[in-house]
Amino acid sequence: MNLINSKIILKNRPDPSVTEDLFDLKTEELKELKDDELLVDVKYVSIDPAMRGWISDIGNYSKPVDIDETMRSLGVGKIISSKNEDFKENEYVVGWLGWQKYAVVNKSLIQIKVNPNEVPLSTNLGALGLNGITAFAGLVDICKPKKKETVVVTTAAGSVGSAVGQIAKIYGCNTIGFTSSDEKAEICKKDFGYDEVINYKKADNLSSCLKQIAPNGIDCFFDNVGGDQFDAVIDNLNINARVVICGTIGMPSYPIPNGPRINRTLLVKRAKIEGLLVLDYFDRYKEIYDQLAQWFKDGKLKNKEDISHGLSKAPSSLVKILNGLNLGKQLIKL
Amino acid sequence: MNLINSKIILKNRPDPSVTEDLFDLKTEELKELKDDELLVDVKYVSIDPAMRGWISDIGNYSKPVDIDETMRSLGVGKIISSKNEDFKENEYVVGWLGWQKYAVVNKSLIQIKVNPNEVPLSTNLGALGLNGITAFAGLVDICKPKKKETVVVTTAAGSVGSAVGQIAKIYGCNTIGFTSSDEKAEICKKDFGYDEVINYKKADNLSSCLKQIAPNGIDCFFDNVGGDQFDAVIDNLNINARVVICGTIGMPSYPIPNGPRINRTLLVKRAKIEGLLVLDYFDRYKEIYDQLAQWFKDGKLKNKEDISHGLSKAPSSLVKILNGLNLGKQLIKL
Repeated sequence: MNLINSKIILKNRPDPSVTEDLFDLKTEELKELKDDELLVDVKYVSIDPAMRGWISDIGNYSKPVDIDETMRSLGVGKIISSKNEDFKENEYVVGWLGWQKYAVVNKSLIQIKVNPNEVPLSTNLGALGLNGITAFAGLVDICKPKKKETVVVTTAAGSVGSAVGQIAKIYGCNTIGFTSSDEKAEICKKDFGYDEVINYKKADNLSSCLKQIAPNGIDCFFDNVGGDQFDAVIDNLNINARVVICGTIGMPSYPIPNGPRINRTLLVKRAKIEGLLVLDYFDRYKEIYDQLAQWFKDGKLKNKEDISHGLSKAPSSLVKILNGLNLGKQLIKL
Repeated sequence: MNLINSKIILKNRPDPSVTEDLFDLKTEELKELKDDELLVDVKYVSIDPAMRGWISDIGNYSKPVDIDETMRSLGVGKIISSKNEDFKENEYVVGWLGWQKYAVVNKSLIQIKVNPNEVPLSTNLGALGLNGITAFAGLVDICKPKKKETVVVTTAAGSVGSAVGQIAKIYGCNTIGFTSSDEKAEICKKDFGYDEVINYKKADNLSSCLKQIAPNGIDCFFDNVGGDQFDAVIDNLNINARVVICGTIGMPSYPIPNGPRINRTLLVKRAKIEGLLVLDYFDRYKEIYDQLAQWFKDGKLKNKEDISHGLSKAPSSLVKILNGLNLGKQLIKL
């Protein structure tokens, strides 16, 4: 075929910060497709906070990306050649395409086929992608929110957080978002329909501040952060509260930091805390995607994007989101 | 009726320790039974670690015992007079009888009727009482142990812990108990069938010690303690581990102590931690009791008792169990 692929590989592991120079851009000639493989022209790739974990090799939940391996990521693209009877040229797919222009993959790496006439291609990587699936799994499956319950979401304007906030509204909950700037707070209220938003950087005492806003306590807590924000919500939990740990972006990975012990609070409140890994829900990808897509088409689930252009921007975009500087789902358009 | 009742009332709240002098013994003449009430001649009363919470008024899960009120406790006794058609003279009942010789109660305070010819009376307050129900609710309902999984239990020789360990064996699990003396360790192995026991007071590094005993990690953890023992087990959790917080006897109630933040471990391990209050399971008392009683009759669930004689021993017995000095379920025989 003589197509030349561009790809970004992992050169070094974080020590401990994620920096652009951990990655390298390489080109190589593509090999012929083997039986069952398909060749995808990648249109968008996803940039996700979870990547901090994927490129690290300590205490992790999935096999780390190897050194010199193409960076793992979800992407959406168009099939330009196929030796697999389940997939045809010109169909669009979402899957583990990696940070590269052309992906040669087999069926096991493809999540779903998508129709660009129904939903914009890039949306399949945001509110209808890893982020939306994560939000659904944590909020709907683990928290099981009931009408009129109060739900707190950290990184409320982020791509996972904003989906959680909106789905909580669909379930009839009262939603409170924690975010890091007045600009994001405004987006939370206007675009994602949060009932209340706290700019945690401006709060003197986050726990009291939350108590004032939610005097009846917190029933569900979807946390992407940990640390002080986590502590403030734990202080305000209701009896039978449900907490999802989806991320710990506000905490160092190692060494493990200290904080208030939560055992007695969990006991007294009969509360539940559970760690969420979205990959555990991938066998239900299609089912959850269809629900999210319906909400999207109904105008109940909005998708906000922050798109950079060109594969070479992927590493700096990852550093950017880890510093909370994106506004909406960070994507790279190829 | 002119019966004279002896009862122990709460005089002061812990500040912060539980001491004998928080209680007082009083006598009073019993009043006539009102409609629907029954008069129970109390045979045994229960002494439970949870009482530390019941007599405290900070951050609690049930209404604290009022000052001058009879101390709350489960008991078992014989009905000697009844104005309630559901209960007859000479029947035996388990219920919230309190630390007193005679209890005048209505139906709402009675859990079940028991038959002293089937099960020794006192056993209804131990492995078939609050302790057994607690063990069942936490282990079976919350942890859902599977065959060959590894289960860790703290206060392994205690009345709740020993029931957890034995039920875990009934479910085909590998059981590891943490206990505080070699004498108790011996009881754990001989009487309660633990596969492994750690005397935590002798372990240099509890986490490494546990890793050595259970190199494949911990699937279920029933914790009555908190603190260092909790940390050691959290270090060794498996993916999809389930942790029940049933007590925090090894931690000060207030101020909340610091310890390692567990967010990232929960995330990476997709583990669940849940607080358990046995009172939430009282609507299933009879169903759970019947299962426990069957195991008891089959010889699979042993009950070990530490019985003191005379109501006046109740306060010192409470102090004794809070210091871990009992061997088996602490009861007072009246």
